Amino acid sequence: MTDIRPRLRLFVPHALAEGAAVALDRDQTHYLASVMRAAAGEAVLLFNGRDGEWLARIAGLAKAGAALVPERQTRPQAPVPDLWLLAAPLKKERTDLVAEKAAELGVSRLWPVFTRRTNAGRVNLERMRAHLVEASEQCERLCVPELADPAPLDKVLGQWPEGRVLLYLDESGGGVPLAQAIPPGPAALLVGPEGGFDDEERRLLASKPFARPVGLGPRILRAETAAIAALAVWQSVAGDWASSPRG
Amino acid sequence: MTDIRPRLRLFVPHALAEGAAVALDRDQTHYLASVMRAAAGEAVLLFNGRDGEWLARIAGLAKAGAALVPERQTRPQAPVPDLWLLAAPLKKERTDLVAEKAAELGVSRLWPVFTRRTNAGRVNLERMRAHLVEASEQCERLCVPELADPAPLDKVLGQWPEGRVLLYLDESGGGVPLAQAIPPGPAALLVGPEGGFDDEERRLLASKPFARPVGLGPRILRAETAAIAALAVWQSVAGDWASSPRG
Repeated sequence: MTDIRPRLRLFVPHALAEGAAVALDRDQTHYLASVMRAAAGEAVLLFNGRDGEWLARIAGLAKAGAALVPERQTRPQAPVPDLWLLAAPLKKERTDLVAEKAAELGVSRLWPVFTRRTNAGRVNLERMRAHLVEASEQCERLCVPELADPAPLDKVLGQWPEGRVLLYLDESGGGVPLAQAIPPGPAALLVGPEGGFDDEERRLLASKPFARPVGLGPRILRAETAAIAALAVWQSVAGDWASSPRG
Repeated sequence: MTDIRPRLRLFVPHALAEGAAVALDRDQTHYLASVMRAAAGEAVLLFNGRDGEWLARIAGLAKAGAALVPERQTRPQAPVPDLWLLAAPLKKERTDLVAEKAAELGVSRLWPVFTRRTNAGRVNLERMRAHLVEASEQCERLCVPELADPAPLDKVLGQWPEGRVLLYLDESGGGVPLAQAIPPGPAALLVGPEGGFDDEERRLLASKPFARPVGLGPRILRAETAAIAALAVWQSVAGDWASSPRG
């Protein structure tokens, strides 16, 4: 496309097809009308994770709701790399950051995992999901990462799916450099909390044939830095950053 | 070292040598006494960017100042990889984040660069430096990244040092995947503002033999995400993340 892309891009749950009007909920209507000051007739890109990306027009804009009419598909649906991020919840702002960057950096699934040294007692899934959606809208993804139900580490490891390698960031420094440890195929990156994994968790991880300790150099990285850096390295080695740039 | 590392680690300007007392300024004294509730006799790690890392003891702690006495060197001085990050200033919190992550991810120099679409009119260098110092203390660096004087892009390009490649993040999608574009030797990564480079800047960059456009995959990354991700990829390919893990 050489024409100017619309400044508005929204994730919607509706099916997308030519001429089939989409009714926005109150929050998205507020965003369009009051935050972005959009007007009837303005173009909006829509995606739902299934039907690709569509150019739609605002047909009506009232306080209670807006109606958008898809006109044509701008991109067909395409998969993201099969990469999960398992992350122990951190303080609120750092968890927000991990969610935002996980979406930008192309994960297919974000999975909050509780470890023994995790300080956060619970996770605000709604808040996390809002960050995933907003980042997905901005970075031009065609889907929002799946947000898996938070679970304790031992339970996650106990029901691990066959065929997926688990690369865990070993802050004790014992791991293989991440870039050298990435096999082809489905993968998951696991980043512990600020305090790291405890001895029992370390033993449990070492006992699992699908799990490999990896490292990111000689400096001590904060948990969210390790998560973001690991995603970037994985995308460069095995993900969609290795292929040719976008057209 | 198998013993427990001190919880306190400080960057100081003083020379470090056995028995030569170091007088902390008011801010660091406040941090030790009031924030960390340290007491006389407690161990503190010190580094100054020149003399390696030293184990010191708090000899005295008063409101006006604290005295620390270095006892033994724990690590000799060692260089960080020769990597610069040139970054257009962003909104305050995003600029804070870039400074913090640049230190953690091992840059030798951070250089704020003004481009035509840079929204921030000025840079708070003191604030940026505070983030660099704090992150350097926490991530166990032996030096704080140099903070270069902010300058306009054309001036920076006009006096570029020989022998250093400039890899600029080309958000238009025309760049070679970063991991495939990294040569050995001194390097700099350049990340533009949220609005990207304008046409004239793009032509100027393309005219420089030391500059190469690079890309980070098909999604549109926010400026600070691109900076962090690019640093991680560079460290994995040409920096100190490729060598064996720390002992």
